[in-house]
Amino acid sequence: MSNRADRYRQAGVDLDAGERAKEGLRALIDSTRDSNTLSGLGSFGGLYAVPAGVVDPVLVSSADGVGTKLKVAFQTARHDTVGECLVNHCVNDILVQGAAPLFFLDYLATGVLDAEIVHDVVAGVARGCVQNRCALLGGETAQMPDFYGAGEYDLAGFIVGVVPRDQVLDGSRIRVGDRLIGFPSSGLHTNGYTLARKIVFEEMGLQHGDPFPGEDEGAGDVLLRIHKSYLATLQPWLRDPALHALAHITGGGIPGNLPRVLGDDLGARINSDSWEIPNIFQVLEDAGQVERAEMFRVFNMGVGMIAVVAAEKADSLLAGMDEADEPAWDLGEVTAESGVRIG
Amino acid sequence: MSNRADRYRQAGVDLDAGERAKEGLRALIDSTRDSNTLSGLGSFGGLYAVPAGVVDPVLVSSADGVGTKLKVAFQTARHDTVGECLVNHCVNDILVQGAAPLFFLDYLATGVLDAEIVHDVVAGVARGCVQNRCALLGGETAQMPDFYGAGEYDLAGFIVGVVPRDQVLDGSRIRVGDRLIGFPSSGLHTNGYTLARKIVFEEMGLQHGDPFPGEDEGAGDVLLRIHKSYLATLQPWLRDPALHALAHITGGGIPGNLPRVLGDDLGARINSDSWEIPNIFQVLEDAGQVERAEMFRVFNMGVGMIAVVAAEKADSLLAGMDEADEPAWDLGEVTAESGVRIG
Repeated sequence: MSNRADRYRQAGVDLDAGERAKEGLRALIDSTRDSNTLSGLGSFGGLYAVPAGVVDPVLVSSADGVGTKLKVAFQTARHDTVGECLVNHCVNDILVQGAAPLFFLDYLATGVLDAEIVHDVVAGVARGCVQNRCALLGGETAQMPDFYGAGEYDLAGFIVGVVPRDQVLDGSRIRVGDRLIGFPSSGLHTNGYTLARKIVFEEMGLQHGDPFPGEDEGAGDVLLRIHKSYLATLQPWLRDPALHALAHITGGGIPGNLPRVLGDDLGARINSDSWEIPNIFQVLEDAGQVERAEMFRVFNMGVGMIAVVAAEKADSLLAGMDEADEPAWDLGEVTAESGVRIG
Repeated sequence: MSNRADRYRQAGVDLDAGERAKEGLRALIDSTRDSNTLSGLGSFGGLYAVPAGVVDPVLVSSADGVGTKLKVAFQTARHDTVGECLVNHCVNDILVQGAAPLFFLDYLATGVLDAEIVHDVVAGVARGCVQNRCALLGGETAQMPDFYGAGEYDLAGFIVGVVPRDQVLDGSRIRVGDRLIGFPSSGLHTNGYTLARKIVFEEMGLQHGDPFPGEDEGAGDVLLRIHKSYLATLQPWLRDPALHALAHITGGGIPGNLPRVLGDDLGARINSDSWEIPNIFQVLEDAGQVERAEMFRVFNMGVGMIAVVAAEKADSLLAGMDEADEPAWDLGEVTAESGVRIG
């Protein structure tokens, strides 16, 4: 082929490599199919039948990214976990409104296309989809050579789930005195990485393979711990009328996310002795000399999800979680005074 | 506030600016609401009721980006058009399967958050949503300070539409001898920008404000021309059984996209004299010394959408378009031999 016939590739975009990379994803994508998935690889849009038997169905949708947790994936050259984080993050964002996932799409923007990295990233996405029983219905892999460095990429995800209209969790049942039940996070999930990386890699001077103080893993692995999905834990409770609301603790932490379901007229009192703040957050707080109040705004501090539960049912929910071997803590209660007080 | 209380902001992420930027988008987002939109700004997931009266509804979904057309937006500091390109691109990707849009979500990843840029980008997204009658149901604005330079961002979009199952356009009705009707693009749409920018700004040495040869506009404006939505033009024809398929001409051009609906067993013969290749592509071809075959693989060459139509109905469709003042061309026909021949 003459040089003249290959100007796009010389400019940095390889259409053939794009097609080959797409073909290499076929098995991964097929592994996520279910009986409502009506399209395969290569169609312009993905087709998904609205499941029969859902009365007055409401679609619940969310878009999200992984933020600079990606930088840790680049440092460690471990690209197969961030996709799972992304799916789980999105699953939690619709779960809190009562929805079970239907399908997911990803957007993966790269500089020069590296088929192996694309495969690893999508493998993580597909694993997350299988675990949360949602179909990987489509996606876009963009080659943007002067946007992203070699081996670097951005990753965004988009989920659609469904809930019968009368089972939408909208916080309207929340009352003063409701208990706040917390569920443990697995680590930083996908928030606060710009600050955490600065503390760990610059101020503490760690390399990604160095042991992280107080942990059995290296710094990179500790920071890459997969964002937890709460679908399996909480789906059995979604139809219980005592479950008044759920809040996914993401950017903004407990003080930023709990008010999203409490509204302007109610608040929360949280007893910080009700759970043990995990070592990773203690290390970041001490080494980074971060004030406790800011720690709570930037990080989840060990609590990845909060359920707002009718007071008289809190003990039975906690007992149910204990029986299912799911750790859960009684964090505090809903108050008539707005704002979140952590004491 | 002491320095210690502000470590996240010093690291480059300003949560308060994020909240303020989100508040500034409220009116834009509200302008896209319809009667099926059940959630407002700030909910974890966006809620959208499946429209009543669609028999056996199939959801059609697509994810896309704007590619390095964004670089032209950065150069010209004009950020309010790329969002409209993105929505229109996504609308076309589900239109070709017979679907009308329901809702859209965006992912906007920035370095340091610039509220004015965020507002302009989302204004373009919202305008596109209003024009295509779809709700802007949600989105994510990510602050990733060591990912993107000042004033730079990446932008991705996700769309969901709906079509009754028996009206899905899947190409199964295509027959040898069907006519191929082309609809004009407005310019490059959102493909080929890495090569086009190299030719225009490096090899031709133009600045974004310099006149573009043979056009009334500057180079930046010519390259920013908005990706056209074909929804209004084609929606009236979607239920016509003579319309056998639609192909959106995006990355890969006519030879890359027409086979996506023709399948492996059929091909196409296209007469390149049936439309006039617009000036912008002629300039790129000449100035960049790009071979004609590669031009057709990288760019849409003036054809943004192709309808595959039963031969006996092609004239009435063309007459209908003429009546509606919509330019359309009889490009050629479906052949028994696979592959796309442009001659």
